[in-house]
Formats: sequence, structure tokens, C-alpha cells
Amino acid sequence: MGRRVAIVGTGHSKFGVRNDVNIPELAYEAISKAIADAGIERKEIDLVVTGYVGGWSSEGLAPVVIMEYAGLTGKPGYRIEAACATGSAAIKAAHDAIAAGEADIALVVGVEKMNESPTPTVVEFIGRAGNYFWEFENFGLTFPGYYALYATAYMQKYGATEEDYCKVAVKNHYYASMNPKAQFQRKITLETCMQSRYIAWPLKLFDCSPITDGAAAVVLASEEVAQKLTDSPVWIESIGASIGTSNLSKRTQFTNLEAARLAAQMAYKKAGIDPENPVKYLDVAEVHDCFTIAEIMAYEDLGFAKRGEGYKLIRDEQTYIGGVIPVNLSGGLKAKGHPLAATGVSMAVELANQLLGKVEKGRQAPIKNGRAIAHNIGGTGHYAYVTIYSLSKPRSPA
Amino acid sequence: MGRRVAIVGTGHSKFGVRNDVNIPELAYEAISKAIADAGIERKEIDLVVTGYVGGWSSEGLAPVVIMEYAGLTGKPGYRIEAACATGSAAIKAAHDAIAAGEADIALVVGVEKMNESPTPTVVEFIGRAGNYFWEFENFGLTFPGYYALYATAYMQKYGATEEDYCKVAVKNHYYASMNPKAQFQRKITLETCMQSRYIAWPLKLFDCSPITDGAAAVVLASEEVAQKLTDSPVWIESIGASIGTSNLSKRTQFTNLEAARLAAQMAYKKAGIDPENPVKYLDVAEVHDCFTIAEIMAYEDLGFAKRGEGYKLIRDEQTYIGGVIPVNLSGGLKAKGHPLAATGVSMAVELANQLLGKVEKGRQAPIKNGRAIAHNIGGTGHYAYVTIYSLSKPRSPA
Repeated sequence: MGRRVAIVGTGHSKFGVRNDVNIPELAYEAISKAIADAGIERKEIDLVVTGYVGGWSSEGLAPVVIMEYAGLTGKPGYRIEAACATGSAAIKAAHDAIAAGEADIALVVGVEKMNESPTPTVVEFIGRAGNYFWEFENFGLTFPGYYALYATAYMQKYGATEEDYCKVAVKNHYYASMNPKAQFQRKITLETCMQSRYIAWPLKLFDCSPITDGAAAVVLASEEVAQKLTDSPVWIESIGASIGTSNLSKRTQFTNLEAARLAAQMAYKKAGIDPENPVKYLDVAEVHDCFTIAEIMAYEDLGFAKRGEGYKLIRDEQTYIGGVIPVNLSGGLKAKGHPLAATGVSMAVELANQLLGKVEKGRQAPIKNGRAIAHNIGGTGHYAYVTIYSLSKPRSPA
Repeated sequence: MGRRVAIVGTGHSKFGVRNDVNIPELAYEAISKAIADAGIERKEIDLVVTGYVGGWSSEGLAPVVIMEYAGLTGKPGYRIEAACATGSAAIKAAHDAIAAGEADIALVVGVEKMNESPTPTVVEFIGRAGNYFWEFENFGLTFPGYYALYATAYMQKYGATEEDYCKVAVKNHYYASMNPKAQFQRKITLETCMQSRYIAWPLKLFDCSPITDGAAAVVLASEEVAQKLTDSPVWIESIGASIGTSNLSKRTQFTNLEAARLAAQMAYKKAGIDPENPVKYLDVAEVHDCFTIAEIMAYEDLGFAKRGEGYKLIRDEQTYIGGVIPVNLSGGLKAKGHPLAATGVSMAVELANQLLGKVEKGRQAPIKNGRAIAHNIGGTGHYAYVTIYSLSKPRSPA
């Protein structure tokens, strides 16, 4: 009933420690590229959706500052936040506006400048993205601590090892070494990871994604407009989303993220993908590897592996190019970097370019099915978004 | 092309200093009433959109805490923020999802608990809702200061007086005295306002809206579902929105809010309302009277009065029931209270009940055209939303 929606332009800043720019300048690196890539003029944009978690800066209305700097004052707009899944939530909201006929062209930008000196510290601030008053105040859980609970339970239940976790890091640093936008561009060995210091047992320094400044942007358009603008639209085929429990004490287990599983089921159902064998329909995946254990849980929540067998996929190197399904060819959050709200939009940029065969040699997935999947988590499964992108016009809106 | 969307249930907490509840409890007062009013079960809700500015609490993911408390874990959802226009932006996003066919039933809740002890203080925090690094850091502008700039310019240019501003306060306290949900329930005299202390000349204590805790919620549904659920849907007829400049130095004048004017033009155009004579089409308005001058500028930005003549409407008591158009019969932000993100949703609740003839005696507008308008501003016109609600099914989606 709604209209189909496509990505018609993408932009991506260099991720890293970006003390050379302020927030609007950083956002503009992505916005200006996306607008130029789409071949549109600013006046054609009907809606701007800004993904921004913030808290790093005293700037109260960063999206308004960004829009003024980008020459987009006057447009309808708002800010979206869904913790680290913000970027995907922003894409959903802009998608819905276009599908509804409320906009023909929308700009989505995700931006974060985490290395600005915050009060409280970045680590404390991110630690609040669970249940603050019970878990953080009483138990002092930080984010590595949250994911270490999962990593420990998963090892105990299924027999995964610290080496398995480190193998995720080795893969993602390997692909990041070919991505000029990535924060880290050096390959690492298994030993580098295994010998790095513990942050929260069993997670070591190289199991953790870094603190990143960065921005990513996409221009979305309705079917009619997209087909005028480009010969190579990348369609949003389906979106699944779910909110998890706030309190971890209400989770029934600690070896997968229920919200991610629900979001995947919803996305697969809408796209007509068999949830028992999704890899048959997909060419490439970007998943939320804020910690290495998170990528392994993602394999299972997305149905790439059976429950309890996700670690075997990385142990057997089946998520490299040539394996069952290549995952995080961008370097992932782990090595490309994780500027919270930019991450979901960055996944969209990466997957659009993968599907179009436009990424760097050595990290380009072979495209056969013409479909790609993004898995984006907020908190420890407090928010989950799964988005399927396609080269073929979908049967129905997302 | 999209689907029509209607309000099918409303809920509203008592506004005020609510030290008796925490954030999820406060939100639940509105959510539970809205769900009961709609006559739906929780499992029928396809999307939850939470409006929350926050910053008052250390709780990082308040929307997730609220959804767990409300029994809505598992649903797709995200948080929207557009400063004090957050509530209207949240309604737009939920509207778009339903119009697009991505959801049949959506819950929108706006909540704020501003009286929790924040760091920095509430006044400093709100002062950041302009351009922080230039205006706040350099000039120390607080929010009363921002609107005092407008109040001063308006008096100088058009000859309005401090009495005219106070007359807005007298009207809004008068109607709040009949609204059991309002923070202030005592009428005031012109002398009370005129003799109150200056906060930022010419604005006095009684020209300013208070610091408020509160929540409001609406259940939205698609045309097909709405007509099954209720004989009295209130339709979202049209939505207009605009982002203003961040820097006040880039505004061309200080006697109206350009973003509000643009948002109104957009909403009128979509609804087929003559922007030269909108009062002919409307029965009642809720406008963003964070300060009394803001209500007078709203009269002009919405076209209720000619440019420079808005103050005459209140001087002649033409925005009471029986006048040209009754405005803020809820008591407005001024006297009902202004829990930032709850405000736009509260406007929707009030106008739905006004259109249905369901508000308290003495503050019920006569309903002839079956149309009502909400005007919701973020910052000093940094965001603007104008939403038109109607008893008649609109010709097309909003």
C-alpha cells in the first residue's frame, strides 16, 4: 500500500579521532557527498532525519546546528535516538515518510563526535545504556562488562574459546585494512588479540570496538523519483525492529539477543526470506560487532548458524569472502569504528556500495542474489533493527 | 497514496511537580489510559514512539525502561527529539509509519520529569536549546532571555505593551482553572501578572511557563482499524514542519518565528485551508505559549491576525471562547504546564477531546467546522510543527 523506497546517494566521513572538525563539519563531510552522489539540489529534499545520541557535547540542538551549516534550514526534520541502533531507526523513519507519500526525497545523517571531552566520561556514559538506576548504580556495569556476561555464558554453554572471539577481531581488522574510511587500517594476528590486556574477562582490548568520531549519510527517494535520478537504486526491501527488556534480570538467557532474533524474523517474513536458510538469499552482511561476542551472537540471531554453533562459523573462517556468508567486509564496528548514531547509516552506505560492486578490491563481496542485510543493536539488545537492502525492486514496501 | 490516520485513544497524566512517581510510572499514567480509551490490547500495538528530551535524569535509555514497565517489550520503537516540539514530531513519525502501511496501530507517548535534580540546572539546560557555543557560552542567553529579545522587538515595532502580554497569562490561567490536569488551577488578575518580578525584561514571572513533570499519550490507527475500533475517530488531516536557523544572528527579524510560518503554510496547503483566513476553517487552537509573547507571535504565524496585529486579538479578548478563535483552552504551556516532550502530545489529547465535546464545562469550544490546530515550537523557532486534526475523514493522508 505504501510506496517503495530506495537509496539514491551515499556519503561517509573518515572514521577515527577527528579533532580536526567540529560536529557540523563532520556531519557535512557525509551530507555533502550523499547529496552530490544523488545528483540532487538541496531544495529537492523534503525531510531531514538526524541520528545523534549525543551527550558528548554541551550543544543542545546539534541537529539544528548541522542543518544550518549544511544549508538545509527550512526543511521539516527531527532527531531520532535508539542508542547504538539510532542510524537504522533514522532510516526507518525516513523510509516511512517516503512510503507514506509525506516526502519524495529524504536525507538521513548519523553523526557522533565521541572524542570530545565529556562529563561523565565516555565509558560511564555508554554504561548508562542499560538500566541505569538498578544495574549501573548498584553493580557498576560498564559496556564491556555487559557483553562479558554474554561472552562468559556463551563459552560455558557452547564451548567457544577466547581464540574464537579473537578470530572475529582478526577478520574485521583484515577487511578494515582495505577500507580507507576505517579507523584502524592495520591487520592484526591472533596473537596480538590473545595477548592484549583484559578489559572485562574474557573480553580483551582487541575484542572491543573503539571510541570513534564519524558521520554517514544516505539520500532516500520514492520509486518514481529514484528511477528518474539513477539507473542503480538500492531498495530498502524490509525492516524489522524490536525493543528488548531494560533490566538484564528479565532476560531468559545470556547467549543471544532476543530482540535481534525478533527483528530478523520480522524482516525475513516481509522479504519472503526463509528464516531457516537466509544465507541462500543474501550476498553480504554488516552486523553489530561492538564486541567480538556480539558478532557471533548475530550469526545465530540472524539464522546464519544454528543456535550454539555461531562460533564454528568464525572458527572455520566461513564469514570471510568465499565462505557461507561474508560478514563485516567494512571492518565492522570493531575496526571501522563505532560512532554510535553513524553506525546504522554507515552499514547502509557500505551495503549499498557492496551491492553496486563499488567497494575496494579485496573486500568486495561477489554479488549473486542482489541482497544484503544490516543488523544494528542498541544497548545490550535493548533496541534491535534488521534491514534488508536489494538491487531488485521489492514486491511491496518495507 | 498513503493511508489516512486517526487518533483512537488518548491519555494524560496530571501535570505538575510529580515527586510521587518515577519516569516509567509517570509515562504509564498516560499510556494505560490511552490504551484503555482505544479499547485495544497491548499485543495489537505495532510501533511505539517515545518523545523524550531528557537530560534531567541519568537514565540513559528511558524509553526502554518505560516500555518494559508498560508491558510493551518486543515492539519496534525508537525515541524522537525535536526540543519542545518533540511531541508533535513523534506524532508525525508514528503517523508516517501507519500511512506507509508499516503499522496498523501505534502508540505515541511524550514524557518529561523536569523536577528531578539535574546537572546542570534546568534553566541552564533549557538555555542550551539555541546555539550553545556561540550564544550561550558567549552571551549567557537563558530561555526567558531568548524570548525577551522577541518581546522587546515586538513592543518596539508594533506598540504592544506589557499589559498585552499579561493578558495572555490571565486568559490561560483562567482556562487552566477548569482543567483538572493543569499544573496551576488558580485564576490570576492582570495586577498579579503586572506586579510579578521581572525574569528578563519585559517578561515577568507570570509571563513564563513553569517547570513541569508530565506525560501524554495517543493511540493512532489506520483508517481501516480506526473504523473498527471507534465511532468517533479524530483524523490527522495535515502536518507541516520546518527547522529554523540555529544562530539567532541569522534570523531576519525578531517579531515572528519564520519556521512556524512555514510549517503553518505547509499544513494549510495540504488541508486545503485558505492561509489568508484560516479561522473560518478552525474551531479551536492549542499554541506554544512557553512565554506570553510566543502566543501572540503564534496568532500571526498561524494567520489568525495580520502581521503586527496579534496583540490586538488578546487585548480585545478575541481568543477566549466566543471570540475570533479560542486559543489554549487547556491553559496552555503557561498554566497547564510544559513538560517538554509531553507538550505536543498533550495538545493532540486536548484537541481530540475538544473536537469530541469531551472537555470540562466552561472550557469546551463550540465545534462547528470540526477542525482544530496545534502549533508546537522547539527552541526559539528552531523546530516548528503545525498539525491539523479533524472530525471529517481527510481527502488525502497528512
